[in-house]
Amino acid sequence: MTADTRPAGPADAKIFVLVHGGAHGAWAFERVTSLLVKEGHHVVAQDLPGHGLNARLPRSYAARPLDPQEFATEPSPLAHVTLRDYCEQVTATIRRLSALMPHHRIVLVGHSMAGLVLNQVGETVPELIDHLVYLSAWMIADGTSFSDYMAAPEFSTGLIPTVLLADPTVAGALRMDFRSVDPDYRARLKAALGADVDDHDWNAVTHLLTPDTPIGPLAERVTITPDRWGRIPRTYISCTDDRAVPLAAQRRFIAEADRRTPDNLTDVRELPTGHSPFASQPGRLAQFLLTPGLHPAGAAGHRRATKEKS
Amino acid sequence: MTADTRPAGPADAKIFVLVHGGAHGAWAFERVTSLLVKEGHHVVAQDLPGHGLNARLPRSYAARPLDPQEFATEPSPLAHVTLRDYCEQVTATIRRLSALMPHHRIVLVGHSMAGLVLNQVGETVPELIDHLVYLSAWMIADGTSFSDYMAAPEFSTGLIPTVLLADPTVAGALRMDFRSVDPDYRARLKAALGADVDDHDWNAVTHLLTPDTPIGPLAERVTITPDRWGRIPRTYISCTDDRAVPLAAQRRFIAEADRRTPDNLTDVRELPTGHSPFASQPGRLAQFLLTPGLHPAGAAGHRRATKEKS
Repeated sequence: MTADTRPAGPADAKIFVLVHGGAHGAWAFERVTSLLVKEGHHVVAQDLPGHGLNARLPRSYAARPLDPQEFATEPSPLAHVTLRDYCEQVTATIRRLSALMPHHRIVLVGHSMAGLVLNQVGETVPELIDHLVYLSAWMIADGTSFSDYMAAPEFSTGLIPTVLLADPTVAGALRMDFRSVDPDYRARLKAALGADVDDHDWNAVTHLLTPDTPIGPLAERVTITPDRWGRIPRTYISCTDDRAVPLAAQRRFIAEADRRTPDNLTDVRELPTGHSPFASQPGRLAQFLLTPGLHPAGAAGHRRATKEKS
Repeated sequence: MTADTRPAGPADAKIFVLVHGGAHGAWAFERVTSLLVKEGHHVVAQDLPGHGLNARLPRSYAARPLDPQEFATEPSPLAHVTLRDYCEQVTATIRRLSALMPHHRIVLVGHSMAGLVLNQVGETVPELIDHLVYLSAWMIADGTSFSDYMAAPEFSTGLIPTVLLADPTVAGALRMDFRSVDPDYRARLKAALGADVDDHDWNAVTHLLTPDTPIGPLAERVTITPDRWGRIPRTYISCTDDRAVPLAAQRRFIAEADRRTPDNLTDVRELPTGHSPFASQPGRLAQFLLTPGLHPAGAAGHRRATKEKS
């Protein structure tokens, strides 16, 4: 933190709920979490079902050299995971924290795939959330699923398809090989996910990433309404060099959301990073999350006003 | 948490600083951290230098099949890491949190190798720490290094030596192969570190573990004095089925510490788990950390009394 960042202190401490993206775990936020806690905030980052300590690996992933055919076809042990599984965990955490600390503002942050979680959880418990922060996240439009976007022109420059090693409909997962020793494949992974991450750090990140992101949640359509999700102040932290969720796709998400809630426009911030700012620019990312402008006076009143209304 | 656990609420919230063991990262505490945050506490778990997002892997670890000769002799990229590196990180975090929230009690928890960190940090800033919690940790005696204990009879039943794949003095690290597909070796790893962990969870844990634990910190002698480290109330959470730090070794640590500070005896708790209670019994472990008895009335006054004295 820079010297002019006023520490939050316990009085105006906020609660940050950080939700990682597919193939990641709570570990991704370790640097950001520490910085936020050291500013006096309560921070919880949990491993979603199927991720981190809850990860389950296809059998064929351990065998080396990899059998490409088997890796391309083995059903994912995570194929049963649903968006509801993710959202129930996050919603329960928010309910608990809100009941325990009713006067603390709750900021729900989601990276990448966790945009789906923010949409659904925001729609479910808008009265408990003071601010949504989408970090290069899939802030998809009402009534759509992520899969609906895959062929959209805004995703044409995205590099994720260049690193998938199984047909998602066959494996039941987006499947990547983070243990590959093929220099070309490794270079494609880095280009897609962490071009600006220090090489040593990137080796540590790929060591922690897990191969399967279940596709169930990506195919689910989510309803978001102006009166529930649409009332929560939201920020989109746009990673401008992102090659997993290209900038054009991020801008489409923002435009669609703003059309849905013309009275509650997205607050857009830009970070000049790729898809892994938690690794390449954790200090700057934390600073963005701490910026007072992210939680304007209006936002402080949002939850109270909503509570009175409901 | 059980229904009769009174939530801490923000007023009597404590600050937990969780320090992971060798080869682990902050990820190990994910379940425990979430449980503590959801009781209203401030919790920070950081990746130590050389661990988690800061891990560095020997080149030979990625190549499969593994070249046993190369893996046995390649110098660790972490061979330069010192105990001071670990302690500076933790001390800085404690100083920061103490300055920011001077009325919150600080509980410093260390697993396994992090016992060395608790000794040194406790000796350095005793006035800032309200309680030390050693979790099957190396609470070694004044003037000793961990290496001094390796040949002790209390360690004779320890299984770590059965899974080391390099001479530590050659590699500069305790080196294990968590990616091994050899069923015998994998069984030895599980017996040593996580016999009671669910098999699926264990696969997730071994996926996250990193191969090298630098030996520099293990060879450093630490001075702990009754007037500084010895004034801090301390608990030893003893994992009674531990085969990495055998129960006899844990009891020796406790006996030696109690001889050093006869007026401040170790509060000993027992968990019927192996070396990885964060994975096998996270709820029970969190409950132990939350037990009021762990933070007796005397402890609350410790820091204030120390401050007035200094």
